[in-house]
Formats: sequence, structure tokens, C-alpha cells
Amino acid sequence: MRALRYHAPGDLRVDTDVPEPKCQPHQLKIKPAFVGICGTDLHEYSTATFVPIDTPHPLTGEKAPVGVGHEFSGTITEVGSEVKDGWKVGDKVAVQPTLCCWSQGKHAGCDACDQSAINICSSGGFVGLSGGGGGVSDFVCIDSQFAFKLPSNVDLDVGALVEPLAVAWHAVDQYELRKGDAALVLGAGPIGLSVIQCLKARGAETIIVAEVAAERKAFAKHFGATHIVDPTKEDVAGKAKEITGGKGVDVALDCAGVAASIKSEVAAVRVRGTVVNVAIWEKEVPVQPNWFVFGEKSYKAVLGYLQKDFAGVVKALGDGKLQPTKMITSKIRVDRVVEDGYNALINEKDKHVKILIDVQGS
Amino acid sequence: MRALRYHAPGDLRVDTDVPEPKCQPHQLKIKPAFVGICGTDLHEYSTATFVPIDTPHPLTGEKAPVGVGHEFSGTITEVGSEVKDGWKVGDKVAVQPTLCCWSQGKHAGCDACDQSAINICSSGGFVGLSGGGGGVSDFVCIDSQFAFKLPSNVDLDVGALVEPLAVAWHAVDQYELRKGDAALVLGAGPIGLSVIQCLKARGAETIIVAEVAAERKAFAKHFGATHIVDPTKEDVAGKAKEITGGKGVDVALDCAGVAASIKSEVAAVRVRGTVVNVAIWEKEVPVQPNWFVFGEKSYKAVLGYLQKDFAGVVKALGDGKLQPTKMITSKIRVDRVVEDGYNALINEKDKHVKILIDVQGS
Repeated sequence: MRALRYHAPGDLRVDTDVPEPKCQPHQLKIKPAFVGICGTDLHEYSTATFVPIDTPHPLTGEKAPVGVGHEFSGTITEVGSEVKDGWKVGDKVAVQPTLCCWSQGKHAGCDACDQSAINICSSGGFVGLSGGGGGVSDFVCIDSQFAFKLPSNVDLDVGALVEPLAVAWHAVDQYELRKGDAALVLGAGPIGLSVIQCLKARGAETIIVAEVAAERKAFAKHFGATHIVDPTKEDVAGKAKEITGGKGVDVALDCAGVAASIKSEVAAVRVRGTVVNVAIWEKEVPVQPNWFVFGEKSYKAVLGYLQKDFAGVVKALGDGKLQPTKMITSKIRVDRVVEDGYNALINEKDKHVKILIDVQGS
Repeated sequence: MRALRYHAPGDLRVDTDVPEPKCQPHQLKIKPAFVGICGTDLHEYSTATFVPIDTPHPLTGEKAPVGVGHEFSGTITEVGSEVKDGWKVGDKVAVQPTLCCWSQGKHAGCDACDQSAINICSSGGFVGLSGGGGGVSDFVCIDSQFAFKLPSNVDLDVGALVEPLAVAWHAVDQYELRKGDAALVLGAGPIGLSVIQCLKARGAETIIVAEVAAERKAFAKHFGATHIVDPTKEDVAGKAKEITGGKGVDVALDCAGVAASIKSEVAAVRVRGTVVNVAIWEKEVPVQPNWFVFGEKSYKAVLGYLQKDFAGVVKALGDGKLQPTKMITSKIRVDRVVEDGYNALINEKDKHVKILIDVQGS
């Protein structure tokens, strides 16, 4: 079959002779429809971090070439013999690409999976990065527990947005949101925009977004930001306090990962408030712990998602509480992933939110 | 009356002509018995931070000279006309020295006091630092809600330890301790030793303490440390993982405030674990937020205490769950506070835990 595969950094190929995967008893065989490109894909293209190059991944036993595409939707073409739960051929699904030792039947004392924190499994990985196939292919087989049926009013292209929205849903879930809460979101890239939508869907009333780029400010506004602050021109913490009547926001979600943000985001949260870090950081940054001390503030880091986050997003999409269609800024062909996908995301960064690979398109 | 007062940095005097405070209707008049000296007292002696020198404190309206001593016990000598709760002359009490806008009747939109977080009141202060008298005096009047009756089996000298123990109780309270939990305590100074005792009293089974000084290691062992690690000789995180079967501790409590500790304390906590910061920091330190990300770890800063923390400590003392007597390493005279107190704590730092000023002694 045809599959986009990662052979080495900078070496991505549409291979046409890839063996079609066999649907195992607990799996669903899926014909992928749309696949989102994310920052991790770009990062891996230049430097392999998640993709196993020399040593096989402990869970899949595979190394490069491995399938590409971990944000995807598709249609079921085969249901494994032991799969219950009423799955049918033709069902449209969003896929959670999580690979963890527990789900892979290789669980042996992983503290994370023992706590059901499969998102931080000590040997975890992702379909589309760590072996086990990828979304940009004719077929991929996945554990049935990681498929989420799309409601009839949710199209397959939107289904490919469930994964980034689940990252945001998980982040917002770490903080007990109360009606009327005020939140600050730092950075309005794809994840920041997803966070804005999840905050809105879950009842936050004041959503302040710190962002520099004009296009991203406009996206933030569209998706629910009530206030936009430009950190290069305004004092983010000062504005956040002004907007919230002097108190500060209940929660700040860092989707930027910029050193300068840390001090201002901590200052922006009210006493006993929480900073949730959704970003991945390049390097160490200077922090004065007293920033947290005198207001008894907290810092909470999150990573990825759980099944309940996928379920929450899919339900919110069906209910119309999440309306992310405008995140899709382009749809491209499988053979143009680098040119129209990766390069566009690098060269026209602020113009794009989510570029989808149309796997069935020509 | 006689009172030890802070006139300026480096200028502490036993004044003998201080007007005796009048017991207001909601107050109790107390004859202090013992007063502990803490790091804040030493710090203030060299550099005024809490003590109002030029500008009157917003809650007390006082500036230097102000009374000294915020960790104290005493005996009630007068009960205000509006005080209920069954207080009697002769009752032995520990005093919570909190001054907050709410209790001082000056509450107007302080977000902290609105949340009952009177420990982080935006204009808060302390009896013994910010005016309102101090423990090292013949008499001091305090709001009756901040007095805690000592059980009959708890002596007045131990009563002066309630305040530092309440700091620790509050810190441990931020984390939902489960039976069998493992904790790491960084630093075995007076607060670290208090934290060890509170962890033990509340059911932690494994208490690992990172400390360099031999005397402090011995104190830590006495008060309940199950394992001692020397951070100059051993890898704290590695040892913590080894002791906990590879997982790491459930909570780390930083009572040291040393830059090098941060990385190792985050590494020492298990996935989804918490670092509780009890220390006050001198300066910015380098932190890589990813240390928290890949285990979804949290950082929580605490400060001071609430009334429930004083109540918790006093009850645990009465029940024998806290047995802190050995913390008292010296008792000194009022006129020897600098020589036998402050200087001893600086010059024989590791030998002493808590030096008490015996206010009634001669």
C-alpha cells in the first residue's frame, strides 16, 4: 500500500510498496481521511526526537522508516474479531495515537500507567512517530479503545482536529474551572487557539490572549478570546489585573514557552491561582520561586491527553460547543507534504493554523 | 512595661517605659512566657523587610520602634468584654501572630482575605514584626480568634514551637497525603525539622531528608526521617528513586531554597508528584520547565499558616503525635537576645534548632 514514511531527518518519502497492516483481534482497520501537521512533525523533520532512528522503539519494535501522521480521522474498513463496543465498517472515527506499555501489553511496573496516566508512560510513543503505522497511508490498524466515533454532524476533516483539541482539553481539565472564571492564554498558535476554544466550551467567561502576530490575534478573537494583549507593547500582567478588577486571572495557560512569559504569567494569576504549562521548552529559564510564594500560586505541567479528553472533545464537537472548522487553513496532497505543508508552516507561520493532508485526495 | 523593641536594623533595645497595651473588647491580654527566634528575626535584624521603618504599617499604623517576637506562648491575664468562646484568666495559649486586613477590620477588596487566605493578605503583617506589640514583652493583646489553648499536657515552652510547626503543618496540608506515602524534605533547619514531624504525624511512611550538616542529620533522624541523603555526596533524586522502588517520592518539600535543589527535587518526585516550596528565595534560579512536563509534575508555593493549621498542631501536640521538645536547644534571657540568640544562631547554626527567649526568666 501507499504510505508516507519518515526515513531519516529531512528524508520523507511516499513509499508505494509498504505491506498492508493486518487487523489484529483487538484492532480496527482504518482508512485515513485527513491528517493534521503539527509542530512535532516539523521538529522531527529537522531533528529526530520521537522517531526511533537507530534503536527500535521499545513498544513497537520498529525503527525508521516509520509511518507519518498522528493527528488523523478515517473510516473503519475492518473490525477485529475480539472487538466489542458495536463498531461497524463505515464508522467515521478520530484516532488517539497513544502508544503506552499498558495498551501494548508490555506493562511491567511503569508508575505512570499504574496511575492510568498513559499519556506519560515511561516508554510511551505515538502511532505516526514511533512505528505502528501512521495516518498518511492507505490503511492503519489501531487498538479499538483508541478510536472515537465522530457524531454524524462532524465531518472527517474536523475529525483530524480532535487530537490537538484533546491536548487543549486535557490542559484545561487540570484546573477546576468555575463558571465566570478568567483565564489568560499565552500564545495563539494551534494549541493556544485550541485552548481558547476549550476554555470557552467549558464556561470560562473572560479569556485574555497574549499574542504578537496580527493574524493570530484575529484567529484568537474568532475562537473566543474576549481580550487580546500584545506582550511587546503592553504589560500582560497589568492588563490581566485591570481586566479582572485588580485580582488577576484564575488560571494562565502557557502555550508559548517563551522565557519572558513566565514572570508575567505568574504575576497575572490571582492569589492561589494556577499556571498550567502546555508548552515544550527549548532551554532553562530564570525563575524566582518567590513569584509563587507570596500568592501561594501553583505551576502545573501537562502533556498530551487521555481517552477521556478525546471523548470530551468529540462530545463537545457533536454538541456544537466546539466549532473549530476555521482552524483548517489549507488542505494539501500526500505528495506535497514538505512543500505545501512543512514549508508553508515555517514560511507562512502566522497565516496558518492547521494544514490537513487530504489522504484520499488527488 | 518592659518590651524588647526593634528601633532600626542592628538596633534592638529592651525598653522599660513602653505603655502597657489596653485589652480591647475582642482581645485577650496575654503575659508571654516563651518566644522563639526564627530566621526572619535574624534577617530583619540585618535588613528591615517586614518591619516598617519609615512608613507606618497599613494595618497597625505603627512604625519602628515596634515590639519583637512572633513565635510565642503565654498566659491569659485579661479577657475582653466581647470575647465569647469560654476563655479564662490563667489559660495557657499559643498565639498566631497573623495580622490581616480582614481581622483588623480594614477589609476592602483584598482577594486573599476574600478567599479566606488570610496568610497572604495583600497588606498583611505579624504581631512582633509589624506593630501591635510583640512576644518579648510583659503584656501583649491579641484578637481572641488567634489564641489557641494549649492542652494540659503541653508546656508553655513547647507552646512557643506551635508557630514554626504551623508553617510546616500548612505546607504538608497543601498535598493530599495518603497512607504509605513517601516524602522528600530538602533541608533540616527548624522548618525542615518541623515538616518532618508533621509528615510523620500525618501518616507518611517514608521520609527522606537531604541535609549536609551532621548535627542536623541527627536531629532529622530523631524527629522521624527514615533515610538521610547528603546532597554533596549523593545523587538525591537517584537515592529517592532507589528507596521508593524506582518510582520516586509522592511529594518533595523544599525547606532549603538552594538553586541546586530544584532540579533534583523535581526529578525525585514520581509522575504526577508535587514539589511544595516552603522556602523563601534570595534570587532567580535556572529552571527548565520540561523537568515538570514529562511527568506532569506540579509546583506549589506556600506561605505561613491559617488558623486551622494552628488548631491542627495544638491537637497533635495534645495527642502526642507531635513531640517537638528536642527542638528547643537553648533558653535565653530577654537582655541577651542578640548575644545568646541571634549570634548563636549565626555562629553555631547547625547546633541549634530553636532558641527560646524565656520572657519571665531572669
